[in-house]
Amino acid sequence: MTREIEFFFDVASAYSYLASTQMAGLAERTGVSVRWRPFLLGGVFKATGNGTSMVPAKLQWMAKDIQLWATQYDVPVRVPSRFPLNSLRTQRALTAAVRLHGDGVVPAFAAALFRAAWVDDADVQADSVITACAHGARLGGAAIVGAIDAPETKDALRATTEEAVARGAFGAPAMFVGDALFWGNDRIALLEHYVAQAR
Amino acid sequence: MTREIEFFFDVASAYSYLASTQMAGLAERTGVSVRWRPFLLGGVFKATGNGTSMVPAKLQWMAKDIQLWATQYDVPVRVPSRFPLNSLRTQRALTAAVRLHGDGVVPAFAAALFRAAWVDDADVQADSVITACAHGARLGGAAIVGAIDAPETKDALRATTEEAVARGAFGAPAMFVGDALFWGNDRIALLEHYVAQAR
Repeated sequence: MTREIEFFFDVASAYSYLASTQMAGLAERTGVSVRWRPFLLGGVFKATGNGTSMVPAKLQWMAKDIQLWATQYDVPVRVPSRFPLNSLRTQRALTAAVRLHGDGVVPAFAAALFRAAWVDDADVQADSVITACAHGARLGGAAIVGAIDAPETKDALRATTEEAVARGAFGAPAMFVGDALFWGNDRIALLEHYVAQAR
Repeated sequence: MTREIEFFFDVASAYSYLASTQMAGLAERTGVSVRWRPFLLGGVFKATGNGTSMVPAKLQWMAKDIQLWATQYDVPVRVPSRFPLNSLRTQRALTAAVRLHGDGVVPAFAAALFRAAWVDDADVQADSVITACAHGARLGGAAIVGAIDAPETKDALRATTEEAVARGAFGAPAMFVGDALFWGNDRIALLEHYVAQAR
């Protein structure tokens, strides 16, 4: 019996954005709930020694690939002018929301932040954007922004990132079904197949 | 009107093997023929500066990922004891087959070589294995083995590799529908969607 799919994501990651738009459908089709877990992709790269090899040919392909997935999913996407994004404050804000309100608020808050970053080209590190996204998810923005730099928030984000690495993650999004890691937006179908088999 | 899907592959690549098992079904479902084009992944990496970032966490994940795809596709797979594979002679043998017999013989010959490498743990650089695989595809092994080191064969493999790079390839498998590049076994569904839309 599979109780949970864990979705480790970073707002800075385009493929995390694309995957995030599919989590509700995945939960519905599989009957398994998805727990959204904000972590820090930069921290994962640092801990594992992994990185994204970004030769020009791959960058060109990726821009088109992201558009094709967005078309397939029927969701909007626009590569941010700030690309690549810094997301330390964003991921801390999400972590603060978990601390203040629990896991359940993450999907709506993260969806607002993903949309700000990957559709509206907003600066998701800015307090004003974080506050607006919190409001969009019916959360108090001031409390979340006020908790971004709290040591407990920093520690919690670090702990989530270290947990993901300890369980085998090396990139984002990282989805877990128990011990099984599924890396990338492009592994959602494989994960779904896996969950169906494991029933 | 999409006339052709080009499938650039290297027998050394696990995801090329996995994708190769899906090409017949892809052609059948889309009604578009697939042209199998042997190229040299090592040459692609050299030309583009790309490489496969192989930190331990990613290697561990990949071994399981390959098994999961094989299960989903219902095909056998065993990671070769020689991993990573050298495939220069193998890709030259495939190129020689194209020169001697035309494109049409590639799918059967390549399937035999992929199976030798990724199921039977055979040395696909060895003349004896190349000969047996040629026979399995109803081709004369001696003529192919005899043509492996011919300058025309080397030039042809180099030209195919350079063509793929010039068109944007940076890894394997690289599938093209006209100008559109689909990189990786995991992009077959996206390619299929693209072909269906382009009708």
